[in-house]
Amino acid sequence: MSRTVGQVRVDVEGAAAWLAGRVVRTPVLRSPVIDDLAGARILLKAENLQNGGSYKMRGALRAVGRLAAAGHTGVIAQSTGNHAIAVALAAREHGLAATVVLPVDAAPTKVDRARAAGARVVLAGTDVEERVTTANELSDESGHPVVDAYDHPDVIAGQGTASLELIEEAERAGTPLDALVVPVGGGGGVAGACLAAAGRGIEVYGVEPVGCDSLARSLAAGVRVPVASAPTIADGLRPSCVGELPFAIVRDALRGVVRVDDDEISAAFRLILMEFKVLAEPSGAAGLAGALRLSGDAGVGFGRRRTAGVVLTGGNVEASLLARLVVQRPIAVTAAEGVAA
Amino acid sequence: MSRTVGQVRVDVEGAAAWLAGRVVRTPVLRSPVIDDLAGARILLKAENLQNGGSYKMRGALRAVGRLAAAGHTGVIAQSTGNHAIAVALAAREHGLAATVVLPVDAAPTKVDRARAAGARVVLAGTDVEERVTTANELSDESGHPVVDAYDHPDVIAGQGTASLELIEEAERAGTPLDALVVPVGGGGGVAGACLAAAGRGIEVYGVEPVGCDSLARSLAAGVRVPVASAPTIADGLRPSCVGELPFAIVRDALRGVVRVDDDEISAAFRLILMEFKVLAEPSGAAGLAGALRLSGDAGVGFGRRRTAGVVLTGGNVEASLLARLVVQRPIAVTAAEGVAA
Repeated sequence: MSRTVGQVRVDVEGAAAWLAGRVVRTPVLRSPVIDDLAGARILLKAENLQNGGSYKMRGALRAVGRLAAAGHTGVIAQSTGNHAIAVALAAREHGLAATVVLPVDAAPTKVDRARAAGARVVLAGTDVEERVTTANELSDESGHPVVDAYDHPDVIAGQGTASLELIEEAERAGTPLDALVVPVGGGGGVAGACLAAAGRGIEVYGVEPVGCDSLARSLAAGVRVPVASAPTIADGLRPSCVGELPFAIVRDALRGVVRVDDDEISAAFRLILMEFKVLAEPSGAAGLAGALRLSGDAGVGFGRRRTAGVVLTGGNVEASLLARLVVQRPIAVTAAEGVAA
Repeated sequence: MSRTVGQVRVDVEGAAAWLAGRVVRTPVLRSPVIDDLAGARILLKAENLQNGGSYKMRGALRAVGRLAAAGHTGVIAQSTGNHAIAVALAAREHGLAATVVLPVDAAPTKVDRARAAGARVVLAGTDVEERVTTANELSDESGHPVVDAYDHPDVIAGQGTASLELIEEAERAGTPLDALVVPVGGGGGVAGACLAAAGRGIEVYGVEPVGCDSLARSLAAGVRVPVASAPTIADGLRPSCVGELPFAIVRDALRGVVRVDDDEISAAFRLILMEFKVLAEPSGAAGLAGALRLSGDAGVGFGRRRTAGVVLTGGNVEASLLARLVVQRPIAVTAAEGVAA
């Protein structure tokens, strides 16, 4: 689970050893109702219970910890929210200054949580290019390095530790994973999952919102393909292009990508809340939505598998969105489509 | 943490040893926002993530396991819901028939879950006396014993194992509990908590809804006092009288009882959802509501304590009630009143 890509070494096991005791070892949840619905044993890694409310804490803490050890006194980050919160918390823990760049339409909860962690918050535009430009300018002015949200070996390795814990926990429980399903934004989490799963006979799937499918298109094309991200309730899964390093890692390792729409994400959100009894953000619920899609698809064969791990990546949701999401609607699990690779 | 009351031995440690591996060792959750609000370190034992969605699984499994070992082929139980679900699941696990008596106004979710676990469900009246009468009749007819929801040594011992795990986890984390706060229905959970905490210098508090305060009144009177339970959103906390065995255990061991109203329970429900990222039922949220009450009360001195454990007893909530509860309202934490004993 350590791999050298070009000049860069991505070391999930090393990150796991370093992070042990520094992050929450989040529980793996089960639900007989969900198992019935999926026709498979579903193990949900509840990273919504992680410090900072998402698995982004893992990569941020690993990356910022290394920068602190190298003598840096501040860091810059841009994200739609969770990575910014995580970098802010990680910087405070290491005594570094943090400046985080969020979109002007960022979820207020995420802005508040980044500020509460002591970060300077800069709002810039609505797409990732505007935030990257601003972050780079801030870095040039201050001399502080940018901690990329996904195109960074320590971030990928850190995010991969959530998958690694899930894999190990499943083995310990006597139900080793046949498949692992992870939501995809810039691809850091799914790249880490591929590294964590390497050599274990586990098929790894990514899940993208319909219209935010840069990874699916990139896998089909063989090169990275940006998309003009469509609107989605999964605000964390709308980067315009999968990262360079994540793509290099996943292109030969990923079994496929499944696309899910807002209705499927909303249904998965409600199932997670009512059956697993935990709060997901829509981006975090996308993993279960993808797993339920896959379970209905004979071509993918997920339903015949015995055990699937799903990473519930985060739980930072607006109260107003929550109020909309809990309104009951019928839950329809349809056959999969849009499986790439 | 083993105690003989009259002719009856209540053995929390023995129950814990027997239940290990048979129930989920639920996580203990933290939130910096809640710590700030309480002015104390709050450790939340997330028994909503227990099998069956509540800590009632512990006592039911212990009690039914013993009855199965003694050769019984069926069991009867009455409750407002969670104990019935737990007994149904425990009976299925041991291959016993289960008949559960629920009130006619039981939460549909709880009825569905009891049926899904294979129990025969009998609806009877709206108060505990009617259910007890029906359960006893069913027992007389069938010869199957009644597993009381709280007036039963194995049930008390089983429920106490949740508190024991929380106490042990707090010690292991280097933050031993100064106080332990548990919601009170019939008193089984709080009696188990008193036994688990015995000899450790931990002050145990019970929490009752306003108007459902049989334990507070009983402690003040020195004898058990029934109440005509007032309406409350905490449907699991409305027995008309604290149980005989629980009262015998807690009367000299409990530090006090705090009463909370529906607004406080609703506010605690939302804090648990948004900050701890887990779903409580109102009866389960009452524990945090009580802890926040206590934290504001100089007379009780809770705020000066360093660490308080709170048992989040369950998470089986109706979707319709959930939709009402997530509507945001200001959260007011007021000074405590109504502390008895």
